[in-house]
Amino acid sequence: MSNVLIVHAHPEAQSLTGSLKNLAVETLTAQGHQVQVSDLYAMHWKAVADAADFPQRKNANRLRYASESGNAFATGTQPADVVAEQQKLLWADAVILTFPLWWFSAPAILKGWVERVYAHGFAYGIGPHGGERWGDRYGEGALAGRRAMVVVSIGGREPHYSERGVNGRLDEILWPIQHGQLFYPGMDVMPPFPIYQSDRLSEERWVEVAAAFKVRMENLFTDTPIPYRTQNGGHYDGQQVLKPGLGSGETGLRIHLAQQGDPVENLDSAEPPPTALARA
Amino acid sequence: MSNVLIVHAHPEAQSLTGSLKNLAVETLTAQGHQVQVSDLYAMHWKAVADAADFPQRKNANRLRYASESGNAFATGTQPADVVAEQQKLLWADAVILTFPLWWFSAPAILKGWVERVYAHGFAYGIGPHGGERWGDRYGEGALAGRRAMVVVSIGGREPHYSERGVNGRLDEILWPIQHGQLFYPGMDVMPPFPIYQSDRLSEERWVEVAAAFKVRMENLFTDTPIPYRTQNGGHYDGQQVLKPGLGSGETGLRIHLAQQGDPVENLDSAEPPPTALARA
Repeated sequence: MSNVLIVHAHPEAQSLTGSLKNLAVETLTAQGHQVQVSDLYAMHWKAVADAADFPQRKNANRLRYASESGNAFATGTQPADVVAEQQKLLWADAVILTFPLWWFSAPAILKGWVERVYAHGFAYGIGPHGGERWGDRYGEGALAGRRAMVVVSIGGREPHYSERGVNGRLDEILWPIQHGQLFYPGMDVMPPFPIYQSDRLSEERWVEVAAAFKVRMENLFTDTPIPYRTQNGGHYDGQQVLKPGLGSGETGLRIHLAQQGDPVENLDSAEPPPTALARA
Repeated sequence: MSNVLIVHAHPEAQSLTGSLKNLAVETLTAQGHQVQVSDLYAMHWKAVADAADFPQRKNANRLRYASESGNAFATGTQPADVVAEQQKLLWADAVILTFPLWWFSAPAILKGWVERVYAHGFAYGIGPHGGERWGDRYGEGALAGRRAMVVVSIGGREPHYSERGVNGRLDEILWPIQHGQLFYPGMDVMPPFPIYQSDRLSEERWVEVAAAFKVRMENLFTDTPIPYRTQNGGHYDGQQVLKPGLGSGETGLRIHLAQQGDPVENLDSAEPPPTALARA
């Protein structure tokens, strides 16, 4: 059995997003998994990354957030709420984000969770930089070996988010989150679970959505992740640019998905790199 | 002479982002423009969209943020900070966002500005929905006739954000902001001004960056916008899907840029639609 962290960002407990979060807890618990929920609105999560996060400054004259977060992480002077979330992430075998799509990205409170919890030295700025390596990221990092998944309720209609839909493809809209925030620190990202026209869901459609979501939760640890190319797996050159010949036939950001016929992965290690925080 | 609103999101006044904001004010003012700055950190902007935004609820039992924001907008019961920002947007002929790229999107405080200021009935949910029209958005809307521009400082290196760079192309990373938050309510979006490796900028490079930025500010009202396709200009079908034959030869989200040889635009009107707030 495994550990699952749900990071939930919706201001209304009775919302569809809230119902999906509850169903996730129920389904995963019934399977014997341990589940923790970070309900950001209910926790009154501090959304804004600012000087108040660092009572003991390395440089009192000028705030460099990355530098101070690295210093606080290294010296054990991080805010208690940040430490608690980092420990939950290290405890987890899978991390699920549940949120409504607001203006084509996550609610500010969830973005602020990433900004504050992903300290320098924890989620980025680790591992050797040089040659074709550029740190332990995109498939490697402190959170390697974990799974992640986005569960997102969307007010608009599905065709608007389709391959040629006016809003852009959902996978491209979610790129900053799925690739930049979940895959970056090392997690394997499962395909997202979107619910369209979420504010006019009929009882009948809820039954269908809930059934489909339950299956996704039951298969969380066996479904196949999105095959993002690892940064240090031989796909990118010393400038971190995709090597010639790779990604052919694909469009846009999908060139960064591994394809049949790609060169064999040559990651230095399949193990997550050592970090200052031991895995619980 | 014109009116320019700068929405600035950085916690440190001495930052590079702060210097660019100051240079924008200086350059635009010297040209005779009126400039207002919403310095979100300095204003202690409320970043989280929540029930506290609606002391007078339409539905006290269940918070639907879009519905309550529409009600508050229509009944004149919006929070004063939200009204002030809406009035600045209506006053402005151009809107400039200045921020650091954090985890491949805008800081939470700026995302929260969009969520709270873009009320239902103000920035979305306006105009007729049906047939090939789906509201006044993407080129039409309350903010039509205005220009917008993203000024973004980025810690990473330029090749990592290039056409085939590991982070994804910058234009695709900025899509949710540029297309989804600026073009959506009607603004013409200028190409962004990114500064890479922003935390190790030498004095020499600052001189170059500042000179290039000054030119961009001087040409703010004459440079050519990103040619995003308008939603109601004949490019999209009744499902809001790009019509066959359009976007050929392009990849990913760039299929949504107008091309030579496209059918002629047939927007119903070149004028912004009427809104509840009159333009100042």
